[in-house]
Amino acid sequence: MKDFRLDAIESLHIFGRTNGCAYPLTLFWSGSGIEMNLKAGEVWLEVETDYGPLEPWIAVLVDDALVSRQMLPKGRYWLPILRSMDAEIPHNVKILREVQAMHDDPASYLQIHAVRTDGSFLPLPPKQGKIEFIGDSLTSGEGTVGAQKEMQWNSMVFSSVFDYAFQTANRLHADFRIVSQSGWGFLSSWDGNPACNIPQYYEQVCGVLQGTHNAALGAFAPYDFAGWQPDVVSICLGANDASAFGKPAVYRDEKAGRLFAQKQNADGTPEAASRARLESAITAFGRKIRRCNPQAHILWVCGLLKTEIDSILREAVETYVAETADKHTSLFMLPVADTATMGSREHPGYACHKAAAEQLAVEIKHYL
Amino acid sequence: MKDFRLDAIESLHIFGRTNGCAYPLTLFWSGSGIEMNLKAGEVWLEVETDYGPLEPWIAVLVDDALVSRQMLPKGRYWLPILRSMDAEIPHNVKILREVQAMHDDPASYLQIHAVRTDGSFLPLPPKQGKIEFIGDSLTSGEGTVGAQKEMQWNSMVFSSVFDYAFQTANRLHADFRIVSQSGWGFLSSWDGNPACNIPQYYEQVCGVLQGTHNAALGAFAPYDFAGWQPDVVSICLGANDASAFGKPAVYRDEKAGRLFAQKQNADGTPEAASRARLESAITAFGRKIRRCNPQAHILWVCGLLKTEIDSILREAVETYVAETADKHTSLFMLPVADTATMGSREHPGYACHKAAAEQLAVEIKHYL
Amino acid sequence: MKDFRLDAIESLHIFGRTNGCAYPLTLFWSGSGIEMNLKAGEVWLEVETDYGPLEPWIAVLVDDALVSRQMLPKGRYWLPILRSMDAEIPHNVKILREVQAMHDDPASYLQIHAVRTDGSFLPLPPKQGKIEFIGDSLTSGEGTVGAQKEMQWNSMVFSSVFDYAFQTANRLHADFRIVSQSGWGFLSSWDGNPACNIPQYYEQVCGVLQGTHNAALGAFAPYDFAGWQPDVVSICLGANDASAFGKPAVYRDEKAGRLFAQKQNADGTPEAASRARLESAITAFGRKIRRCNPQAHILWVCGLLKTEIDSILREAVETYVAETADKHTSLFMLPVADTATMGSREHPGYACHKAAAEQLAVEIKHYL
Amino acid sequence: MKDFRLDAIESLHIFGRTNGCAYPLTLFWSGSGIEMNLKAGEVWLEVETDYGPLEPWIAVLVDDALVSRQMLPKGRYWLPILRSMDAEIPHNVKILREVQAMHDDPASYLQIHAVRTDGSFLPLPPKQGKIEFIGDSLTSGEGTVGAQKEMQWNSMVFSSVFDYAFQTANRLHADFRIVSQSGWGFLSSWDGNPACNIPQYYEQVCGVLQGTHNAALGAFAPYDFAGWQPDVVSICLGANDASAFGKPAVYRDEKAGRLFAQKQNADGTPEAASRARLESAITAFGRKIRRCNPQAHILWVCGLLKTEIDSILREAVETYVAETADKHTSLFMLPVADTATMGSREHPGYACHKAAAEQLAVEIKHYL
Repeated sequence: MKDFRLDAIESLHIFGRTNGCAYPLTLFWSGSGIEMNLKAGEVWLEVETDYGPLEPWIAVLVDDALVSRQMLPKGRYWLPILRSMDAEIPHNVKILREVQAMHDDPASYLQIHAVRTDGSFLPLPPKQGKIEFIGDSLTSGEGTVGAQKEMQWNSMVFSSVFDYAFQTANRLHADFRIVSQSGWGFLSSWDGNPACNIPQYYEQVCGVLQGTHNAALGAFAPYDFAGWQPDVVSICLGANDASAFGKPAVYRDEKAGRLFAQKQNADGTPEAASRARLESAITAFGRKIRRCNPQAHILWVCGLLKTEIDSILREAVETYVAETADKHTSLFMLPVADTATMGSREHPGYACHKAAAEQLAVEIKHYL
Repeated sequence: MKDFRLDAIESLHIFGRTNGCAYPLTLFWSGSGIEMNLKAGEVWLEVETDYGPLEPWIAVLVDDALVSRQMLPKGRYWLPILRSMDAEIPHNVKILREVQAMHDDPASYLQIHAVRTDGSFLPLPPKQGKIEFIGDSLTSGEGTVGAQKEMQWNSMVFSSVFDYAFQTANRLHADFRIVSQSGWGFLSSWDGNPACNIPQYYEQVCGVLQGTHNAALGAFAPYDFAGWQPDVVSICLGANDASAFGKPAVYRDEKAGRLFAQKQNADGTPEAASRARLESAITAFGRKIRRCNPQAHILWVCGLLKTEIDSILREAVETYVAETADKHTSLFMLPVADTATMGSREHPGYACHKAAAEQLAVEIKHYL
Repeated sequence: MKDFRLDAIESLHIFGRTNGCAYPLTLFWSGSGIEMNLKAGEVWLEVETDYGPLEPWIAVLVDDALVSRQMLPKGRYWLPILRSMDAEIPHNVKILREVQAMHDDPASYLQIHAVRTDGSFLPLPPKQGKIEFIGDSLTSGEGTVGAQKEMQWNSMVFSSVFDYAFQTANRLHADFRIVSQSGWGFLSSWDGNPACNIPQYYEQVCGVLQGTHNAALGAFAPYDFAGWQPDVVSICLGANDASAFGKPAVYRDEKAGRLFAQKQNADGTPEAASRARLESAITAFGRKIRRCNPQAHILWVCGLLKTEIDSILREAVETYVAETADKHTSLFMLPVADTATMGSREHPGYACHKAAAEQLAVEIKHYL
Repeated sequence: MKDFRLDAIESLHIFGRTNGCAYPLTLFWSGSGIEMNLKAGEVWLEVETDYGPLEPWIAVLVDDALVSRQMLPKGRYWLPILRSMDAEIPHNVKILREVQAMHDDPASYLQIHAVRTDGSFLPLPPKQGKIEFIGDSLTSGEGTVGAQKEMQWNSMVFSSVFDYAFQTANRLHADFRIVSQSGWGFLSSWDGNPACNIPQYYEQVCGVLQGTHNAALGAFAPYDFAGWQPDVVSICLGANDASAFGKPAVYRDEKAGRLFAQKQNADGTPEAASRARLESAITAFGRKIRRCNPQAHILWVCGLLKTEIDSILREAVETYVAETADKHTSLFMLPVADTATMGSREHPGYACHKAAAEQLAVEIKHYL
């Protein structure tokens, strides 16, 4: 058996936004990780992690079948991945971070240092396109693990491999990167915190994180858009913005200098000014995405859960197109979870994400 | 957090045949393990394992949803199971050995010593019946993990939680124990080794194992049938016996003093004498099962894979009933895997096992 | 081509309760009809029907695949069933009445006179048991046809071949007869009409019908229980009784000499006396069924829709067993329709009935 | 009730290529028919049909749920379609020809004259695009009806509503027309008859038909492409061409003046010249389709069954693009039937067509 530093493996594919360093490789976002083709009887992985309440989990896929999924203990150590394989048969191995970037746990990080194996690496076929998925809990795969009655918010209920984003990309043999945070929106969090919006952090490597260690790892550095220009940017955001209408005003909007509130009319519909503020956040994010990704098709995605964002998003995108004359943008509707396809935490389960990925893959293929 | 020796947890349920000792608890067979109800924010498990080529894997189910499945490194250590749970909400936790007893790896064993938690144990509802499942690779869940093209025989492709046996018992809230070995039959292995038959080891705790360490763990001691009398014994065996017809005679039949051979006629059908020998092994096993389990319903199960055993088994069971006047026995046919439900190693996949369990549970409910 | 009067076809199987006459054969109940095995290039059927608002429909199954389903115009005429078949290949043909006996249309009847074919009839294998299904709209297959949004009550939305009863029997190669009426219960209709209960008509050929023509056809004659003793009587009734609690008292209870009312407590639960009255109707029906079918297993079935009848039925059956010491009776729970498996008129759709039949067939097999 | 000649119904939608006449309306191709929105208690249809061995069948969909499917007797008569509907609720009604244009039955035709109803017609929403589907038995829905063991080729086993083409169009609320013939290809039939190719008849209304009556009905007249320009032409053809390689030369190729033969090499692969001939037929058909449909996206579709056409088609399309610089053309792969989704006559069943339509609809939506 021989050890290979990650930056010394020529034919390694890296998923996810990085700080530019492959030794160690920091896995910031949901679905970040590595892919290798190898002929080997045995494979180990040297990982390093620390955290407070929200530990990382990883998944291992062999020839695209999920074979293990596990919580990682703290420390730096070698983890067995494959044993007693036929060393004459080539295998594709993917090791992915299962949980999202954990805003709520400043101590949380996960790194891969090296691979130990008795085998040899083989070339990987080139990826057929690049997709960036932006979103909230739906794009973080929240609810795809756990019993339907499970309501606790913790690492266990998150999965990237059961999520529509990974499945869509994998069907297309495409590279993908995820930028997502549970509970966040275009403008605020589900309970009306205006600090919890995705757009303000979009241009950093992983700006949603907190803590000095993550700062040292480069999470807050500008992200190198030029180094990875996606063919498609898919945004599935807004469910939390829809939820924020009518929530009590308890978070301060620093920019505005007052409490943040998305108001409702007496009949429960969004107040016009609040709705306009949300639409304005959407169109502004559209312009930012376009600026960062000049060649990409921008795909606005609804569905998985039924919320009030659908019509608001539709209008905002029409406004965006009218204002910018951007021709490379469109809307796409995913299926919505029902009793049979619902997962834990009242979020769509794997069956719903799978159905969504089947349709989204056909759609996205056009833009690759 | 506090540590609890396994033998000190009052409301612990243990799955699988044991050597009678709960500290440490040795998990011999596929599907053996523990079940707890607890209110806890965090749970750890102290495990101990060693092995040669065939390492053990475990699965963790929380409220009957599979949340993790992983290979275990060698040694004795604490493994994190649950973190950041809501300590006010009761949860059902099952931790099961995923792989079968490994005849081919004399060094292989797995034990649980203790549970560490900040929470408290709750009573478990009584099990609604007891089922013993006897079988081969099908009952070991071989092929329920891994890509369809995966052909390597190793620990990774085995799973007890994806297997029909666990799923049947779990639907019925029944206790269950598995006695199974991949490649083995009523009379011989798939390639005609007469030493590899289940019946001769049925009365030992785990007689299919090898090695001095397993001997020291009590694997070869007589099994205490009186301590756990099943309501149903379900036998899904014979696919390998069907495969043995016509295989070259290379294994010595020690009892007979000559090479063992199950012959075929020129047209490929089983030779009459060989077929009679197999039927005789089946009826003899029936009598042994009855002697060991006087009150149980004996259920002979076919299906999952389509083999020649179906008609042979049917005749043998008819003979058994005629000879013994045993009224508490019957045959049951499970669905057979097709292209869409096939798993790895040309064995039925999870979809097939799930469909089988739905039907088998309804059938077995009658005898509980 | 040659015409065969139905009473002249030796190897014909007749489904459903009849008036004893096979020429013409009157199809009273849902799922009544004929079955033939034949080698033929062409098959016609001579039918006769009349009706007011609620016309009959029939379904044709060839080798158990549904090939046609159609509304029947009024009159007596020849209907083409099969054409251009390979006359050398034997086929199994079933022609079934799709709609229930129509209480609300006194003019409605359907008869088969004869079969015209260029082929020859073959023997039918003997049926493997006999099942009587008693029920309401669920057993009449209401809602198994039509869009989910369809709410109109008419013949179109009924089907016997999509119904759990036919599918259960057909999986078991069993004969079956249905006694069912949409909206009726053990004690009253869904809106509290005490004249609309199944038990009072159970001993007639088809007592739920009305009209002088149906009288002349023998609908109200005593049913010949001795001529067809079922192995299992399956009763799926009570959803309408559950609905009747709290409905305004507008129907006169002739026996009691006052308006009929099943009352509710202030909290919406059934009033004790009303609940007792319903349980009493259930146990009385159990005794009547037992008297008419001394050897049958009586199976009380819940599910398909979620209603308040479950616990009431459970108690009533316990009472029945306590009072009668009847050992040949049990309860069985079917799956319940969800968003994905719901059909028209807020009734379970085909997917729900199919899942129910898979489980019910395994259960009923024990009693055949 | 009032009768409406078909040409007098303002808001009627007609599916399928026609001879330009709506009274009577001749339904030539699979999936041709009519669509109406109406508020009505009752609806009848005046049909006229004659045939030899291959009778037409029709399907009725109410609000997109299939409610009846039936063989039509010969003659001109009124057929009941809907009864006892709620006349206050609008319903969408589609009546479609289930079977393909029957080349093998020169006497076969089907016409609709009029609608009888007590209700009133409502406007239909405009169709969202137009799709032409060209194909063979797969596009004729052969095998979507009947048991898997059914092998007889007759009208019964065809269905347009279970077919991927209708389902794709219907999901998209698009208009559609089918041009298809079972057993035919780009160049020849499955057994090597060069007269049985689709391209030569593409520019006629329904040139694949035969017989003087069909001639009188205008089947062989030039088709009016200008009157209905599709957004997409989807071609799923070639499975029969793949089958023709190696078939004995028994059909005369009139143009070439010799027996037609698509030869194989000794190893069973297509002979180079024969393969080139097929590719040439494909590219020629591409040019013809483009000429007839200047604005359409041309979509070449593979799948449903696994045949050798895939690679040949891919090369031919690349050649076509290279030769013509046509930018509005692409390939699309549909899922392939497996054991579980296979229908009768070894053709894909409804489950396979449904899965195909889900994917094809997403693809085609881009070009509408």
